[in-house]
Amino acid sequence: GRLKHSHIGIVSAAFNKGQRRNGVKDGPTVIKEAGLIKRLQEFDLKVIDYGTVSMEKLERNSSLQLGPDGERHHDAVLAYNRELASLVRKVIQENGLCLTLGGDHSIAIGTINGHAQANPDHQVVVLWVDAHADINTGGSSASGNMHGMPVSHHLRELAKDVNRLPESWPTPCMSGNHIAYIGLRDVEDCEQKFLDDLGILAFSMKEVEKLGIFEVINQCFKHLQPSTDRPLHLSFDIDALDPLEAPSTGTPVRGGLSLREGVSIVEAVRETGFLKAMDLVEVNPELGSEKDVKLTLQATKTILLAALAGRRGAF
Amino acid sequence: GRLKHSHIGIVSAAFNKGQRRNGVKDGPTVIKEAGLIKRLQEFDLKVIDYGTVSMEKLERNSSLQLGPDGERHHDAVLAYNRELASLVRKVIQENGLCLTLGGDHSIAIGTINGHAQANPDHQVVVLWVDAHADINTGGSSASGNMHGMPVSHHLRELAKDVNRLPESWPTPCMSGNHIAYIGLRDVEDCEQKFLDDLGILAFSMKEVEKLGIFEVINQCFKHLQPSTDRPLHLSFDIDALDPLEAPSTGTPVRGGLSLREGVSIVEAVRETGFLKAMDLVEVNPELGSEKDVKLTLQATKTILLAALAGRRGAF
Amino acid sequence: GRLKHSHIGIVSAAFNKGQRRNGVKDGPTVIKEAGLIKRLQEFDLKVIDYGTVSMEKLERNSSLQLGPDGERHHDAVLAYNRELASLVRKVIQENGLCLTLGGDHSIAIGTINGHAQANPDHQVVVLWVDAHADINTGGSSASGNMHGMPVSHHLRELAKDVNRLPESWPTPCMSGNHIAYIGLRDVEDCEQKFLDDLGILAFSMKEVEKLGIFEVINQCFKHLQPSTDRPLHLSFDIDALDPLEAPSTGTPVRGGLSLREGVSIVEAVRETGFLKAMDLVEVNPELGSEKDVKLTLQATKTILLAALAGRRGAF
Ligand SMILES: [Mn+2]
Ligand SMILES: [Mn+2]
Ligand SMILES: [Mn+2]
Ligand SMILES: [Mn+2]
Ligand SMILES: [Mn+2]
Ligand SMILES: [Mn+2]
Repeated sequence: GRLKHSHIGIVSAAFNKGQRRNGVKDGPTVIKEAGLIKRLQEFDLKVIDYGTVSMEKLERNSSLQLGPDGERHHDAVLAYNRELASLVRKVIQENGLCLTLGGDHSIAIGTINGHAQANPDHQVVVLWVDAHADINTGGSSASGNMHGMPVSHHLRELAKDVNRLPESWPTPCMSGNHIAYIGLRDVEDCEQKFLDDLGILAFSMKEVEKLGIFEVINQCFKHLQPSTDRPLHLSFDIDALDPLEAPSTGTPVRGGLSLREGVSIVEAVRETGFLKAMDLVEVNPELGSEKDVKLTLQATKTILLAALAGRRGAF
Repeated sequence: GRLKHSHIGIVSAAFNKGQRRNGVKDGPTVIKEAGLIKRLQEFDLKVIDYGTVSMEKLERNSSLQLGPDGERHHDAVLAYNRELASLVRKVIQENGLCLTLGGDHSIAIGTINGHAQANPDHQVVVLWVDAHADINTGGSSASGNMHGMPVSHHLRELAKDVNRLPESWPTPCMSGNHIAYIGLRDVEDCEQKFLDDLGILAFSMKEVEKLGIFEVINQCFKHLQPSTDRPLHLSFDIDALDPLEAPSTGTPVRGGLSLREGVSIVEAVRETGFLKAMDLVEVNPELGSEKDVKLTLQATKTILLAALAGRRGAF
Repeated sequence: GRLKHSHIGIVSAAFNKGQRRNGVKDGPTVIKEAGLIKRLQEFDLKVIDYGTVSMEKLERNSSLQLGPDGERHHDAVLAYNRELASLVRKVIQENGLCLTLGGDHSIAIGTINGHAQANPDHQVVVLWVDAHADINTGGSSASGNMHGMPVSHHLRELAKDVNRLPESWPTPCMSGNHIAYIGLRDVEDCEQKFLDDLGILAFSMKEVEKLGIFEVINQCFKHLQPSTDRPLHLSFDIDALDPLEAPSTGTPVRGGLSLREGVSIVEAVRETGFLKAMDLVEVNPELGSEKDVKLTLQATKTILLAALAGRRGAF
């Protein structure tokens, strides 16, 4: 039962209010300008650009007010993500494989919600590839940056600790056994406690080294069991890659995945046949030298080409 | 039966007409100026510099005319390579291990031909280490660049698809089972078809990751079976290495071999005892920053020192 | 029997007379200014800064005179190290885990001596992580640089070949079976002969690749058998890491340990429970670009955080 998509639908989530650096909002533009769509089309993929979910409206309407537990730009982040969720849902309901280009990782509040809503039983399994666990709640976070909190918004076990919009948006759509991590290496103590308490499968770089990337991948899929009823959402933070491979990102941590390991992960994701939505987030073209940005965009496109077209090659 | 060479003979193939960037013709000069010969001599190797096969004559005589199937500089590339083949043959007949410094990879038309001609039965096996398969014919190539076509010139199976000099030069000297690849990651569909149709053993980066470099190497030698009658030709394109290791090359592809893997390959080549000729190609000192060129030259010398002296060390 | 330390004691060995580049004396300052102590304290470690062993006195008193076998700055190097040894001994006798920040690697003459003297039976086992074996004697060394000689000063088997201070300082404290190497890739022939003659366990990069870093680590500890009576001294030369990971060092050699492998080594060292002293040497902030220095300091702090706090994370 492989999923058959009619097209790849690209959603641009030009959002930066989940952290403190402006440039990450330009991620979608630079990735597309670097020739992503044309390259995908060379492999006979049909690509539809669904446009950009803009921050403009928010910037007019939203206060900079903190959430109840100190979440920075709480209402702005959630309002933006609700709009984003609608568009992701639309892409999937039109039988597209939805690629969302971030933007900071808070946009996974919207993408996972939209993806789950598009499925009959509102179910999804998530593979989260990241240096960070992004599972803080407003109460556990030291910084208040919501790009460190998207996972908690989807977990039923943490539902009571998460502050939502007045309309109770977003509704949790998964339990701890529906998510797995690869690439962790900068996890706060309170985040580790969430991972442990919820029994979440999490492979840090230490396990990647000990087990090898293929064993790690296999264990993830064996655990997540993606299926037609519960398709796969891949949330790929570019900072999962080593900063030598992808330097232009806001919270780099040394000792990360090689680009080859990253490619191996997304190739395996694709080969499951159950990938229905993917996020590629935290590319910030304002960080680092011109060469750093070039390396980061090459790495990003290499990951996307492998995930969506099953191909390696030059850019 | 290990081969005993009396010396290492260095041939400089300062050639750039197989692709569109001028600087690659300066590869031999910068590699030698970086101290290669002196370093080899420190390990008690006798080194003879056989000088440079120059493009000057061609530049006076050759038209820029395309070949029958759109091969750029067709006659110039083949005329140059015929002269190069003579010099390579001479080095080997004088019992030297022939190291040819490119230049672009089209020079392997001459080096492999010269090597085969120097052997009693005109036989050779080839290990091709490269991001690219370089097996296009004029008809299959989109660019017409002949650095993407050297392999096809030597294969009996593709003989009818290759345009030669009026004197039918070069004569094919091998079949698909006499070549193996390591490092592929940017192979065109028509090239993949050649590889499949001819049953050529080819390890892409995906297999390098899955099997590990040592298993890949072992399978190559088990397949190629180099011997006194059919000695080994190593054609090493510097773009086989990851661009972080060796950035100054014309067609870099991310996700390549680490320098350590490259060294492991050439150490194993040397340990077979049947290496008789080696190409090191596609170093272009005009590409990238000063630091990029320095990294590329260090990587190049590290590969050559391991291949020819069996040593690791500093430069 | 894990060792229990009351604190981490940091000794700054701002020394550069074991080689020819001035900047390496600034290693301790830049590492500390980069926030090391604060970061360690975040993980509830008690850290005491024991200050700097300065070269000033030497610079007034010592001649630049060579040692009997051509050792550069022979008396200065040994006099400095005798003073350094006293401070290291003091840290350990006060029940601290002693971290010495170099400086060039000649400071391991003092740190290992001081560590051994602090132990009841004056015994120690040493894990030496380095691109170089640093086992030359004055007689075997071509350069006369004493940062290439610290190991020989501690070996009973080489005692007769080593020139000491008039008071016979330093006394050898170990045999060849009490030291193991990881990371070697630029070993001189005379050094290799010492390693072979003394039967020293030495894993070059070639073995790291063939066996994998975890097997190498396991074999080292199985051989060294650290214990309460014979605790572990880790001497970590930053040039053990690949120059892409840590470029700002005086004698870089390509094809080195990844930062991840380096972290795996020191994590395993820590997990033995018998680490009592550690050197981190050869960081030279005057070498390379600003970015090179930044990468080198990040890598250094990553290694130290893993070794001393058992943590990975950002800086
Ligand atoms: Mn993230
Ligand atoms: Mn992250
Ligand atoms: Mn090539
Ligand atoms: Mn190539
Ligand atoms: Mn050293
Ligand atoms: Mn060293």
